[in-house]
Amino acid sequence: MADSAAAGPISVEADPDVLARRLRFVLEADRLKSVLRRTRLVDGSRHENSAEHSWHLALMAVLLADTAAARVDLLRVLSMLLVHDVVEIDADDTFAYDAAANVGKEERERLAADRLFGLLPAGEAREMRGLWEEFEAGETADARFAVALDRLQPLLLNMAGGGGSWREHAVTRAQVLRRMEPIRHGAPALWSYVARTVDEACAAGHIATDETESA
Amino acid sequence: MADSAAAGPISVEADPDVLARRLRFVLEADRLKSVLRRTRLVDGSRHENSAEHSWHLALMAVLLADTAAARVDLLRVLSMLLVHDVVEIDADDTFAYDAAANVGKEERERLAADRLFGLLPAGEAREMRGLWEEFEAGETADARFAVALDRLQPLLLNMAGGGGSWREHAVTRAQVLRRMEPIRHGAPALWSYVARTVDEACAAGHIATDETESA
Repeated sequence: MADSAAAGPISVEADPDVLARRLRFVLEADRLKSVLRRTRLVDGSRHENSAEHSWHLALMAVLLADTAAARVDLLRVLSMLLVHDVVEIDADDTFAYDAAANVGKEERERLAADRLFGLLPAGEAREMRGLWEEFEAGETADARFAVALDRLQPLLLNMAGGGGSWREHAVTRAQVLRRMEPIRHGAPALWSYVARTVDEACAAGHIATDETESA
Repeated sequence: MADSAAAGPISVEADPDVLARRLRFVLEADRLKSVLRRTRLVDGSRHENSAEHSWHLALMAVLLADTAAARVDLLRVLSMLLVHDVVEIDADDTFAYDAAANVGKEERERLAADRLFGLLPAGEAREMRGLWEEFEAGETADARFAVALDRLQPLLLNMAGGGGSWREHAVTRAQVLRRMEPIRHGAPALWSYVARTVDEACAAGHIATDETESA
């Protein structure tokens, strides 16, 4: 694998293989449009796919950047959100509230990252994989904000759609609050909205209250 | 409509209406996932929707930024691509090769922009609408690159998918070349690839040759 990226910007005209490999990845990425999540569209008509989900998160990042806990590099956040689910092409989407399905997720996704980012020229592969790993680790300000949006979006869709995947899978208040926790740290200005929405979703019966869970 | 954006960054905590309006737009944007284009996914399984299309373009912009004719502001290009099709929620996607359907498109999209961007607080509305208008005008370096990607992506999908919407609608070589012309100016480093691909698509019978058209 040529490593010309490290030396500076690559000219796709100077090396036709660079363009071919980038476009190979772009075409492979098309398959993310067929990876289905548990979340439904607001109108309930079908499950959401991971490509359109990624678009939705990126649009949200543009509109909500000033809610981030720390000053973020919005270009890095957008690049991260655009690529954060690509490994699902091989590893599939894993439902957050399904503990059994989450076993082995990390190893599946690592292998997927090897193959998928390996389609790219070395420089772009490093950059894309770096962004994905940063999102997964969720430690930088950029990643914490990106992860917060990834948690907020299904809440918006479920709430607007009458319960959606919460209701379909009998998810409880405690589970939802645990899942939403990164918003408190990554986008604190959104937290009071989130807490209020969870209360409303419980009152509406979209989310099982913990009493129900332990009963 | 409050106009606090002009004075600097808005705190969503200082004005809960700001957050409510942004989220109203985010939820309305969900409907872009149900607007279908003529292009099919690479595997031919279904038509592509405009939300996942927008994601695909944004991902391409990250990977192909160095093919732009002039130095572009990638953050602006990404923001533009994320929002460039939102008006289709009201105005629907118009097939580029359908001259009749394109009559009145501009007026339909202007009304759609009034309603959709009007959901946002004034500052964000101005920003998003400005990006959309800039894309439509296609005159700045950022817009020219964004438009070039919007032309390139269906070519990639049609070629990989055995002809796709070209074949389905008997599109001719002259029509495709006219449609691809912005790539020559917006992303000149991609032009030789595009010209070669059109030749290959003609040879494969995916695109009708002009002889066929005039026969």
